[in-house]
Formats: sequence, C-alpha cells, structure tokens
Amino acid sequence: MTAPGRFIALEGGEGAGKSTQSRLLAEALRARGLTVVTTREPGGTPGAEAIRNLLLAPPGEQGWTPEAEALLFAAARADHVAHLVRPALARGEWVVCDRFVDSSRAYQGGAGKLGDDAILALHDFGSDGLRPDRVILLEGDEAALAARLAGRGAETDAIEARSASYHRAVTAAFRAIAAADPAGFARIDGIGAPDDVHARIMAALSDLLEGAAG
Amino acid sequence: MTAPGRFIALEGGEGAGKSTQSRLLAEALRARGLTVVTTREPGGTPGAEAIRNLLLAPPGEQGWTPEAEALLFAAARADHVAHLVRPALARGEWVVCDRFVDSSRAYQGGAGKLGDDAILALHDFGSDGLRPDRVILLEGDEAALAARLAGRGAETDAIEARSASYHRAVTAAFRAIAAADPAGFARIDGIGAPDDVHARIMAALSDLLEGAAG
Repeated sequence: MTAPGRFIALEGGEGAGKSTQSRLLAEALRARGLTVVTTREPGGTPGAEAIRNLLLAPPGEQGWTPEAEALLFAAARADHVAHLVRPALARGEWVVCDRFVDSSRAYQGGAGKLGDDAILALHDFGSDGLRPDRVILLEGDEAALAARLAGRGAETDAIEARSASYHRAVTAAFRAIAAADPAGFARIDGIGAPDDVHARIMAALSDLLEGAAG
Repeated sequence: MTAPGRFIALEGGEGAGKSTQSRLLAEALRARGLTVVTTREPGGTPGAEAIRNLLLAPPGEQGWTPEAEALLFAAARADHVAHLVRPALARGEWVVCDRFVDSSRAYQGGAGKLGDDAILALHDFGSDGLRPDRVILLEGDEAALAARLAGRGAETDAIEARSASYHRAVTAAFRAIAAADPAGFARIDGIGAPDDVHARIMAALSDLLEGAAG
C-alpha cells in the first residue's frame, strides 16, 4: 500500500453515538479495501486499558484530583500512541479512534477548568503532540443525553456521573475547540438514524478518501 | 501543637538504606513527642499505590515509554500530595517520605534523559511544585549496590532491573541536583552501621528540630 495511513478521531459528549459511528466508519473504510484499526481512549493497549480502569473507578475514596486525572489521561494516551496508533499509521493503515486528546481538552481542560494550554503541554510531552488528520465532532441532543445519563443510574462511571452543568461545559468546550480549527474538525449533526449520521461523516472525509488505496 | 509540620524526604539510589533510615528517623521524631507520618513514593495513598503497581509491573509487553512513566509518577505524586502529604502538614505533623520528586528528577529526568525542566513542569502542574523542607540524600557504596541488585535476580522490579550504567547515571544526577541546592539537601554518608547513619541524619536536621514541639 502506497497511500499514507490516516488518523480519524471521533469526539463528542456522552451518548453522542461515537462507538456506533466508529464501527460504521470502519466497516465502510474496509469495504473500500483499506486496512483499519479501531481503537478507543482511554485505552487501546494493555497499559492504557489498565489506566482506564483506574480513571473510571478511582481506588481512593476521594477520587483523583483534576490534575492527577489529566496526568493519567496523558499517560494512557502516550502508551496508546507509542504502541498502537503510530505503528499502525507507519504501516499505512487507517486508525479510527473513539475519543482522543480533544476529549481531554474539553473535559479536563474546559469543564474541569485546568485550561487548554496545560492539556496541550501534557500532550506535547507525552505523545509529541500527535494530531488526528480529521476530528469528527458528533453534536447531539443535549436533552436526550441528559435523559440517557440519568437512566443509567448507578451504572455510570466516575466521569459520566458528573453534574449536568459539567456535561454542558464539555459540550461548549468541544464547540469552541472545533471552531478554532475549522480545517481539522468536521462538526457533524449526530441527530437522526445511524445510517444518516454515517453518510454525513463519509461526506466530511471525502477529501481524505480521494486516492486512498482500494 | 503550634510548631509547623515539616516535610522530610529521603532520597538515593536502590539499596541506599532509605527505608531503614526512614523508620529510625520516624522513631526518633516520635520520641521527641512529634506526630509523624511515614510514607513512600510511588504510593502512600490507595490511588498512588495502584499506580505504583502499574509502574513496577507494566501491563504491556513493551513496558511504558519514558514519557508515560514520568506522567504516571507525576499522577501518583499528585494524589499522594493532595490526599496525604499536604493534609498532614496542615495538621502540624511531620511527614517522612521514602522518595519524592527528586527521584523523578534523577531517574526519569537524568538517567532517563527526559530533562530536569520537563520533570519539574509535571510537578508544578500536578502538585503545585511542593518541595520538602529538607531532602536527605543517602550516598552509598556503588559496588555494594550493584552486588545487591545482581543478587536479587528475578525479584527485581521494572526499574531496579535496569542496567548498571542507568543506575550510575541516577547516582550522578542525584549528586548534581543536590549540589545545585545546598540549603535544601543534606548529603549523608550512608556507609556504616544504621545507627551511625541515623546520627548523621539527626545532626543534619538539627536546625529544623530546634523549637519543634515535644
């Protein structure tokens, strides 16, 4: 394969449909003859998955401080990037990732008030600032999201369980991050049937798909 | 208790006698009527101990990258500082800690070649740059250390198992860090009977002990 690998991240708040759309995207890319790795953050490698467990179920009663949480996300990402994402891209494969650094920017940097510069500095240090070729920002129905999170009850993890105002701040932060980099982000209306949303995503990737091996 | 709490860190390479001297120091401080918390890094809190397990036995076959390792140490320290060290100091207690940020500077920053500035930036972010009131740097017999590490064989953890040249670089980095801050560090000859080494440590803390409640 002579065409370069491409790195696509799907971003958005809880319940935006990222995992469904990741799967549909990977299937469509494979149907074009591309080799695709699907992965997620936090996680994707044995080391990063172990860190994910600590993040979603903190061992201490007091939970992680915001700073410790951001450091753990950066550590998990460093492992994932070094041991899975970069090697796949170097082999010319496409990587479809459910969440990447822009989640840390929106959650810990924005809603968590650590600031964008601090999160980007950790990413520069841990992962040499790797950016996706395109970020798909799935924008959903906030009322539906709130209802879905409320319906999960005790099944929510440490981050899902945060307040409605925290999740609204995440949504606002994603919008601001995407608005500042229109070439890097595709803002996709995530409301509607999964196949309709998928078609919007494929249209938003058409420039990257031109000339991709098949 | 009206006197302020004090934060004492014991530093040095593997086998320098830090844990023995931490115990003897805590006993001597308690004999003076002080309330003492003994702790260690990485670890000291449930969250930090969980991170310690990941550091000393990496889940992935490839181990952590140097950057991921440094982020994990900083995360563990942030949890330890926020949930144990600062609360104890605020109560006026003495904290005796087996390893602190200068270990990250010597191991990951020096021997691991990440650089001192990067490690200090992570510490500023994670723990607001907390410094011990005094660092006891235990300087040992390098030949004896090498023999001890070799004798442990398969029992060594992921960091102890590194090469002799790595451990020599750690020793050199500790010396350079201490030399740059003579007021903050007491370089202690760690060779000899534990009680003799302990007496040297107590002498190096005499200024801090003057006026401490008893």
